[in-house]
Amino acid sequence: MAYINQYTSKLDRLNFRDMFGGDFFLTWEKSRDELLAVFTVADALRWLRENNVSVRIFDSGLGISLFRDNSTRTRFSFGSACNLLGLEVQDLDEGKSQIAHGETVRETANMISFMADVIGIRDDMYIGKGNAYMREVARAVREGCADGNLEQCPTLVNLQCDIDHPTQTMADMNHIIHCFGGIDKLRGKKIAMTWAYSPSYGKPLSVPQGVIGLMTRFGMEVHLAHPEGYEVMPEIEKLAQKNAAEGGGKFIRSNSMKDAFMDADIVYPKSWAPFAAMEKRTELYGEGDFDGIKKLEKELLAQNAGFRDWECTEKLMKSTRDGNALYLHCLPADISGVSCKEGEVEASVFERYRVPLYRQASHKPYVIAAMIFLSKIKCPQETLSNIISRGLPRCFR
Amino acid sequence: MAYINQYTSKLDRLNFRDMFGGDFFLTWEKSRDELLAVFTVADALRWLRENNVSVRIFDSGLGISLFRDNSTRTRFSFGSACNLLGLEVQDLDEGKSQIAHGETVRETANMISFMADVIGIRDDMYIGKGNAYMREVARAVREGCADGNLEQCPTLVNLQCDIDHPTQTMADMNHIIHCFGGIDKLRGKKIAMTWAYSPSYGKPLSVPQGVIGLMTRFGMEVHLAHPEGYEVMPEIEKLAQKNAAEGGGKFIRSNSMKDAFMDADIVYPKSWAPFAAMEKRTELYGEGDFDGIKKLEKELLAQNAGFRDWECTEKLMKSTRDGNALYLHCLPADISGVSCKEGEVEASVFERYRVPLYRQASHKPYVIAAMIFLSKIKCPQETLSNIISRGLPRCFR
Amino acid sequence: MAYINQYTSKLDRLNFRDMFGGDFFLTWEKSRDELLAVFTVADALRWLRENNVSVRIFDSGLGISLFRDNSTRTRFSFGSACNLLGLEVQDLDEGKSQIAHGETVRETANMISFMADVIGIRDDMYIGKGNAYMREVARAVREGCADGNLEQCPTLVNLQCDIDHPTQTMADMNHIIHCFGGIDKLRGKKIAMTWAYSPSYGKPLSVPQGVIGLMTRFGMEVHLAHPEGYEVMPEIEKLAQKNAAEGGGKFIRSNSMKDAFMDADIVYPKSWAPFAAMEKRTELYGEGDFDGIKKLEKELLAQNAGFRDWECTEKLMKSTRDGNALYLHCLPADISGVSCKEGEVEASVFERYRVPLYRQASHKPYVIAAMIFLSKIKCPQETLSNIISRGLPRCFR
Repeated sequence: MAYINQYTSKLDRLNFRDMFGGDFFLTWEKSRDELLAVFTVADALRWLRENNVSVRIFDSGLGISLFRDNSTRTRFSFGSACNLLGLEVQDLDEGKSQIAHGETVRETANMISFMADVIGIRDDMYIGKGNAYMREVARAVREGCADGNLEQCPTLVNLQCDIDHPTQTMADMNHIIHCFGGIDKLRGKKIAMTWAYSPSYGKPLSVPQGVIGLMTRFGMEVHLAHPEGYEVMPEIEKLAQKNAAEGGGKFIRSNSMKDAFMDADIVYPKSWAPFAAMEKRTELYGEGDFDGIKKLEKELLAQNAGFRDWECTEKLMKSTRDGNALYLHCLPADISGVSCKEGEVEASVFERYRVPLYRQASHKPYVIAAMIFLSKIKCPQETLSNIISRGLPRCFR
Repeated sequence: MAYINQYTSKLDRLNFRDMFGGDFFLTWEKSRDELLAVFTVADALRWLRENNVSVRIFDSGLGISLFRDNSTRTRFSFGSACNLLGLEVQDLDEGKSQIAHGETVRETANMISFMADVIGIRDDMYIGKGNAYMREVARAVREGCADGNLEQCPTLVNLQCDIDHPTQTMADMNHIIHCFGGIDKLRGKKIAMTWAYSPSYGKPLSVPQGVIGLMTRFGMEVHLAHPEGYEVMPEIEKLAQKNAAEGGGKFIRSNSMKDAFMDADIVYPKSWAPFAAMEKRTELYGEGDFDGIKKLEKELLAQNAGFRDWECTEKLMKSTRDGNALYLHCLPADISGVSCKEGEVEASVFERYRVPLYRQASHKPYVIAAMIFLSKIKCPQETLSNIISRGLPRCFR
Repeated sequence: MAYINQYTSKLDRLNFRDMFGGDFFLTWEKSRDELLAVFTVADALRWLRENNVSVRIFDSGLGISLFRDNSTRTRFSFGSACNLLGLEVQDLDEGKSQIAHGETVRETANMISFMADVIGIRDDMYIGKGNAYMREVARAVREGCADGNLEQCPTLVNLQCDIDHPTQTMADMNHIIHCFGGIDKLRGKKIAMTWAYSPSYGKPLSVPQGVIGLMTRFGMEVHLAHPEGYEVMPEIEKLAQKNAAEGGGKFIRSNSMKDAFMDADIVYPKSWAPFAAMEKRTELYGEGDFDGIKKLEKELLAQNAGFRDWECTEKLMKSTRDGNALYLHCLPADISGVSCKEGEVEASVFERYRVPLYRQASHKPYVIAAMIFLSKIKCPQETLSNIISRGLPRCFR
């Protein structure tokens, strides 16, 4: 009981009452207090599980997942989070459904939600589409609930869209907080969110956008670096600028990986596609112009090939703070000489950071569980205390 | 406790003892009391869930699903029902199994059932096949149980076959009962089960057959209307005739949508394939005559195209009782100008009935759960009381 | 309470302390006591379930499955075992994951395991690959656990590899023990593990290898018979030889089905591919030589066709002990005139043994559950007693 206080007393100082009944689309729609509530509940759930206390709050209920792109870690993180809280995952496999029969989003959303407590969606392939789709689903189930057809309103959790990847960046952020010993220690720290070369092309922009949108809020100096032509969405850059101004941090853009890495405390080198090209691809896709898409891909690969030197090398790592910056990646990384000939990171760098990288990933199930918990539970402090009192073991012996 | 009595006292007046240990293949194999028991238990489970009482009766156990046709709402309804009662769904994906290796139905049925409490099957594509297959599975697990190899006999629930779609029509029926304020209020009410045009062809006959087989038992006037050539199975028509005679209702057939809609209290306009054509398709399929199947499809589409005026329009709706009949559909509907150019229903009609349509669908998970409950629980009234006494919350707070 | 003693007192006499925290790769890596502990716990779990006592020890947690070959019965057995203990199965579908993106085994294994208590893998297609892959996964999660990234180390259960099929042969063995009235009654009994003709080719060697590796340890006379050219791995033959010498039994090899069946107490006739050919196929596959693979298949089918007379006939069955040997098969069998023209077994023989064959299969879920239980629970006797005291019903009434 004593120990759960370390989490509940933190929550007592935060205002997160609007999260109850809410969705999680974009980190920048949440207040600083709300984000801190997610980190705190994530840590509390982890601590409870580590101490063999079951945090199962649902005796029945479904967690619906819809993945419009391949996924291992987010799929398993969502599945783990749901299972931890007592929800059974049911995947909406669009291939096995009748959705092709001209069913509307509103209808499908309601039809699958009669006993759903959460819906997690990954839809990151086309600019302007993924986030919009999620909001349409959320609106539909909210209506279904208001109409009395759904007995509970499923929470929507954005598992990666065209704009943000909040479960990833919140896990990244919680990792940083733990590595640096608290959120207050991050003030003035420099993080380099940089492009890196990968032989594949067309990776989503949601991670770099999510990082500059989130990490500029905690007084850090966020340095976004990429080759010319690899711009992210202009509105997210503006947002990062504004966040930094308000939060006492900095947001810097450059076309130099070297400048970004210089004296950085944290580095996040990662490939992504140019926003303008992704926008064009979305258009071509909308027009059904598959020849155009193939042509675009070719051009992009040629452009891409010009930036093979954007690699996170040992030499670059030496230029960071004490040669010892925290290396981040959302995984899987394109490791030079391992998963590809030339990639995002030198094998020795990656290898040295393997343990913290896995640690970084380990936060995601708890972050997702916390998002669900805060949307479903009106008085989280009270429920956390009740969980302790209940004393149900996760593993009975 | 007081409130659960509204359900248990209803059950006290019904004789449904033969449902214990039984399967659910066709509504007309069940007595009127047994059907009422399903509605009552479905309502009780819903009421309990709405009041945050867990109705989980299984601490472990599997619900096996086998879908031989695409499905969204029935898949999720079955999944929700199993989860509500504490069973984990395991899908038998025939593609991932060794069934192709010449395994018999009897063997597969036993191999998957060692810890299965329910098996739900959709098999609606070929006349004479689906229901027969379900009975073969049910027979096999009953034998396996008698032989001592299965420690519990899984209940078979028909999730749609070539003959009936009992989970759909029982949900439809419970919706009507609630809309009209009780089963006694249905006496003398007119329901129009009519064919409607859809640009696709070959939709199963199980819904119209299930509707005329079920709804003729409650003193209603059931009007079946379709273009010439779109007859349903003759034995189901005879059954409907007999039901109506016994139950004090009427069963009328016509080839006029207009006549059917005139003064109707309830309308259910929906596309289906001609029985004779489906029978022919089954034969051709049996002979492996795929050219024959293609030719048949062409003929059917040409025939179909002659009946574009079978559409549920505002004008037709005006001719119903007070211009205000309850519009039903099993969904997804082919909505003119929305999901297709010309379809089963005018967009404005569909839109006006969206909320009750979703309500109609919301009954299905509870109806399925009630079917399982009544097969597994010997004294449902006692168990419902025990569930109240146990006082386990669905969501712990 | 009295009755659980029949199991706990057996366990008291066995030394299986090294199973706690361990994996299950090959039966011959386990001591005789450890194997007996698996049988005993399997029987205890079955007895508890039969008496409606829930043996759910996990309130949350995942069981990860990875099937690199089609599977019905092992998939459902693993799913049933996990569900019985309270774990939710999450299938790692390599097609839906990002594994193709050059991710390492070490990384994937950790990424899916943050809340995994068990990982079950089937990987039986290529000689030298499957078992090696499982060990790589097990090593990776053990490291992840040591590094503090995984809060529990998932147990690895071999669901069939290129070498052994321990969940199958342990289920077979428990079946024999029950049929013969105890493990002591097996001393001196003759079991014929023989090749049998099947029109398909290329079935895994793991069953015959697993059988001769396991059953030679209990004082039985194990007779391995196959046509020339259908040798199993030489190291497993050596192992069987050694086991027999140590355990007071016999291991005999011949090329005569007749000799093997003569006076046998148990027969296990089953098709498999020649080891040397499988090794060659693995090489060709490694070289990407698909023409070579096709050519090899052709040769193997021609070779195979020469041994159509290796069939388990009524006549052969008559030659067994009292004409009444126990017939075993891992299923599905190739039944002559049923699933193929000419196959492994005459239809009348198979039909006569259908009930015991299904019984044989029924042991697998419990054997898998026992393997997990013994790896997760430090004091199984105490936990079994606590399960009785807890008195949670599997089905609440």
